[in-house]
Amino acid sequence: MKLAKFIFGDPLKTENIASERLTKIKALAIFSSDVLSSVAYATEEILLALGLALSFAFSMPIAETIVGLLFVIVASYWQTIKAYPSGGGAFVVAKENLGEFWGLIAGSALLIDYTLTVTVSLSAGATAIISAFPSLLGSSVSICLIVLLLVVVSNLRGARESANALSVPTYFFIALMLGMIIYGAFFLETPPPRMAPREIAPSAFSFAILAVILRAFASGCSALTGIEAISSGAPAFKKPQYKNAQITLLFMAAILSSMFIGITFLANKYGIIPNYKESVLSQVARNVFGSGALYYATQLATACILFLAANTAFAGFPRLASVLAEKKYLPTRFAKLGDRLAFSNGIVFLALLATFLIIIFKADSRLLIPLYSLGVFTSYTLSQAGMVRHWIKNRGRGWRSKAALNAFGSFVSFATLLVIIDAKFMKGAWIVLIVAPILFYAMKKINRRYKATDTELDLKNGGISGLLRPVKDIRPKVIVPVSRIHKGTLAALRFAASLSDDVRAAAVNVNQNEINRLKLTWRAMNFSIPLVILKSPYRSVVSPLLDFLYEQDDRNPEKGKTIVVMPSFVPGKFWQNILHNQTATIFKTTLMYKRQKSEQTRVIVEIPYRMK
Amino acid sequence: MKLAKFIFGDPLKTENIASERLTKIKALAIFSSDVLSSVAYATEEILLALGLALSFAFSMPIAETIVGLLFVIVASYWQTIKAYPSGGGAFVVAKENLGEFWGLIAGSALLIDYTLTVTVSLSAGATAIISAFPSLLGSSVSICLIVLLLVVVSNLRGARESANALSVPTYFFIALMLGMIIYGAFFLETPPPRMAPREIAPSAFSFAILAVILRAFASGCSALTGIEAISSGAPAFKKPQYKNAQITLLFMAAILSSMFIGITFLANKYGIIPNYKESVLSQVARNVFGSGALYYATQLATACILFLAANTAFAGFPRLASVLAEKKYLPTRFAKLGDRLAFSNGIVFLALLATFLIIIFKADSRLLIPLYSLGVFTSYTLSQAGMVRHWIKNRGRGWRSKAALNAFGSFVSFATLLVIIDAKFMKGAWIVLIVAPILFYAMKKINRRYKATDTELDLKNGGISGLLRPVKDIRPKVIVPVSRIHKGTLAALRFAASLSDDVRAAAVNVNQNEINRLKLTWRAMNFSIPLVILKSPYRSVVSPLLDFLYEQDDRNPEKGKTIVVMPSFVPGKFWQNILHNQTATIFKTTLMYKRQKSEQTRVIVEIPYRMK
Repeated sequence: MKLAKFIFGDPLKTENIASERLTKIKALAIFSSDVLSSVAYATEEILLALGLALSFAFSMPIAETIVGLLFVIVASYWQTIKAYPSGGGAFVVAKENLGEFWGLIAGSALLIDYTLTVTVSLSAGATAIISAFPSLLGSSVSICLIVLLLVVVSNLRGARESANALSVPTYFFIALMLGMIIYGAFFLETPPPRMAPREIAPSAFSFAILAVILRAFASGCSALTGIEAISSGAPAFKKPQYKNAQITLLFMAAILSSMFIGITFLANKYGIIPNYKESVLSQVARNVFGSGALYYATQLATACILFLAANTAFAGFPRLASVLAEKKYLPTRFAKLGDRLAFSNGIVFLALLATFLIIIFKADSRLLIPLYSLGVFTSYTLSQAGMVRHWIKNRGRGWRSKAALNAFGSFVSFATLLVIIDAKFMKGAWIVLIVAPILFYAMKKINRRYKATDTELDLKNGGISGLLRPVKDIRPKVIVPVSRIHKGTLAALRFAASLSDDVRAAAVNVNQNEINRLKLTWRAMNFSIPLVILKSPYRSVVSPLLDFLYEQDDRNPEKGKTIVVMPSFVPGKFWQNILHNQTATIFKTTLMYKRQKSEQTRVIVEIPYRMK
Repeated sequence: MKLAKFIFGDPLKTENIASERLTKIKALAIFSSDVLSSVAYATEEILLALGLALSFAFSMPIAETIVGLLFVIVASYWQTIKAYPSGGGAFVVAKENLGEFWGLIAGSALLIDYTLTVTVSLSAGATAIISAFPSLLGSSVSICLIVLLLVVVSNLRGARESANALSVPTYFFIALMLGMIIYGAFFLETPPPRMAPREIAPSAFSFAILAVILRAFASGCSALTGIEAISSGAPAFKKPQYKNAQITLLFMAAILSSMFIGITFLANKYGIIPNYKESVLSQVARNVFGSGALYYATQLATACILFLAANTAFAGFPRLASVLAEKKYLPTRFAKLGDRLAFSNGIVFLALLATFLIIIFKADSRLLIPLYSLGVFTSYTLSQAGMVRHWIKNRGRGWRSKAALNAFGSFVSFATLLVIIDAKFMKGAWIVLIVAPILFYAMKKINRRYKATDTELDLKNGGISGLLRPVKDIRPKVIVPVSRIHKGTLAALRFAASLSDDVRAAAVNVNQNEINRLKLTWRAMNFSIPLVILKSPYRSVVSPLLDFLYEQDDRNPEKGKTIVVMPSFVPGKFWQNILHNQTATIFKTTLMYKRQKSEQTRVIVEIPYRMK
């Protein structure tokens, strides 16, 4: 207990929740690390997809197109933040405007997306470390799991503290990247080309080349994951919430685009070729900074921001899960705030999922990225389509142009989604296309179950008359299962006698000697309660008791169902439970789950006798 | 359920227990397989210990000494069987005559011994199979585990059936072995010696040689494990029990000694050298029978009897565990007869232990045998020492000579034990010398715990007056924890109102909206029961309820402890439990285990509301 307090901090009072708000500076660190960190792998993905022959000619145009796409989506979300100041995640927007079906599709996509953000970012972070220290080659799974543990603990401590501790490295990364780009682009000379890529570049434009370019575009779109985070996290901002969120979004987009374009430019300038030992970003940094302290600082900062990106998902996933749980699409425990005002259940669940994926995919980000953008662009498409419906329904000043902007954003996102599915299906995107519908169906099923429960428990749906009937006049039938006479049994018999005059004690005959002893004691104690001995040819204790109970129910049915009063034995220490057969517990559980004659309530009185 | 019935058979009635008795023929198969099967490895162990140089000169004398030891022990046990017709296991004899301390040492030794019998026999059986089919080399663990599964299932089906199914291979093995020995010893010519062992044999007798000989003797004593089984299994024999058991014991000794001597003789005759691919017995059989059908039949029979030996332990271990459990040295569930009148808990527990050991020791019998004889000779020593005390106490006709015989047996066994410890300590016997005291201590501790429980629960030890006080006149204090109003809550409130006029409902304020809704409904329903709202700054549900409960206890203490009436929600299907927070269950468990003000009994009424 003390250790837990030291690690996770003292419990926080619920009233503290208002003060857990984020300034723009801190919010940028928490919500933007996902987007910004993707520059660590996005350029590399483009170069990998294009291959040596096409890189030089097409990597820059592709990066510029992606930045264009970024600004379309950002403009679209700029509107969403203002329209949904209480958190405009894709799930909320799609559900409210397009209905439950599309909302749940967006919800499934986002849950998968957050999970993949954790695994991709941790894996890429491990790659950044290994690029700098090649001797660590092969231990990326261990690195990921250690960092995951740290991220989980910091999140269980609560949101504000993590922002304090973690906003420094984000700005450190931004400063190093922009410095590297400015220094590399404007102050260093272009090295002589290792080969003449311009000669290899095609002069004729063919469909095969178009396919490669589209694939590279799809790969590069991994840069655009995580824009959602600010929009759905809007309530965590300090007031004025929506203004602060919008400004943060814009800053994020500006920083991302300059870094992405800059790194792609430098990769071209130095003719960098992706390899499996060192990341492209590491090669760029080595070219600009040499192999000195600044290079190592860059790698460290890259690893840090990638780990922060995993942290972003640990802010987003539990928040979304809690929204889904409040609307009863997930078990309600995901909506419960933990001791430190964090959604602990969601955090722990996400940690388990991520551990599983890291082990399965061996922490290889190149295997994970193809699964990645699919969910992201599904939610972008649905969220912006929802906004179009929102404007059509609510109108207001300039609604036409707003709807047009969101419609354009949705269309562009959808087109990107199709490109991604086409390019990545065989490389792993099929996994997402299997998991998402399962998740969707599970949420539907959970929701149906909760609704059925509410309907059945609702007082309006009949059955109250019997429940409200007064019972004081009727002395109910009571049975007391006993095995031998001790203080616990006496307490149970005494309570049973206080309930009714119609009490019977029942003992199951498993061992004739014990029954004889019990009978003797019973006679000696001179009880007024009759003792019934139940036969048990097969030595079961529970089923003869159940039979006897139902037999009693049938006797004088006007007295209602028989009440069960059970002595139960609680050892002083938990391990001592293995010494006792706990028949009472088994009997009670059987009684609760066994269906008999449409019975719904049955009074079970437990008299726990606790050892000192 | 149906599958279980098909595998394990229909439940048997308790009254069938008398008919589960064994004839001599069947009992020999069940109880002697352990002893008889040891010829599969005992000769090999002697040859291994002696090494090439000494084998020819000393293996026969050592085998003859061991047979002499066998007859001393058998004579000793012959007396035990008659003196203890209800089962004279070492634990019973030692405890009754030497006291609890020595009894528990014997008990620990025997439990370890039975476990090792299973693992050694299965491993040696796998070796027999692999000797015949070298292509199976490397899969001994799998073979062991598959056979273990079969043995467990047949034992869970009950003792008599296993005897029926399994007595054939025992006699098949005996016939083949004796046939092989007679044919090999008397009808085949001695082959020319591969080398001249007589020349290598030492002419001078040194201490170094004595040490080797003692080590070989210790190794060969693995032939004598399992004599105990008939003595402790005596009650399973048909009447007259002790006569039948004695005769079976004698037959067993005769068969064992002829086989052991015969195989050692043949191993000498053919100059067989142990190797790690083929067992010595397999080499002997190949020399006598060639590599034809008879050879394969011998290997098959050897494997079968070794697997039967594992079966012997599955008769002995659960029987001993049940005796220990009846005397409260082990959890009482080991004394419970299963559906098929077998001690199912002991069988399953032994199976888990054996699986663990097989995997740890990679099913290599040569690693396991050094651990083996230690426990066996400990129990022989103690059992016979106990018999000496028995005769001194009870006297009777010829008690002096009987005591002398048992004393001799005990002394010889003890001397052997010392030789075994000396020879085998470093090779693994130390494991037994660590595990046995732990087991001993655990049994002591369990026994103390049971005794403390009995004392505390005993009515003679005060505290009854309060328990017998009539309660009908006092209307107790009742609290009903509620979270929202549904049918389950109504049933609970209704029952609480029937118990007393002093009822309070308590709701914990975790979510202000829900509390407001609850208050509204409460007012609308017009209950006469007051609703108390409990503050919970840290969002815990259980601790405010506990505080409230103890506060109620302190109010008007003359009314006794507050009764808790809880609505509890039982979903229609078990998996649906994950959808509900089950606060009632957590509250109840906390209440049961949390110690407060020396409270021992507290009435907890559960009103389970079950979904359709």
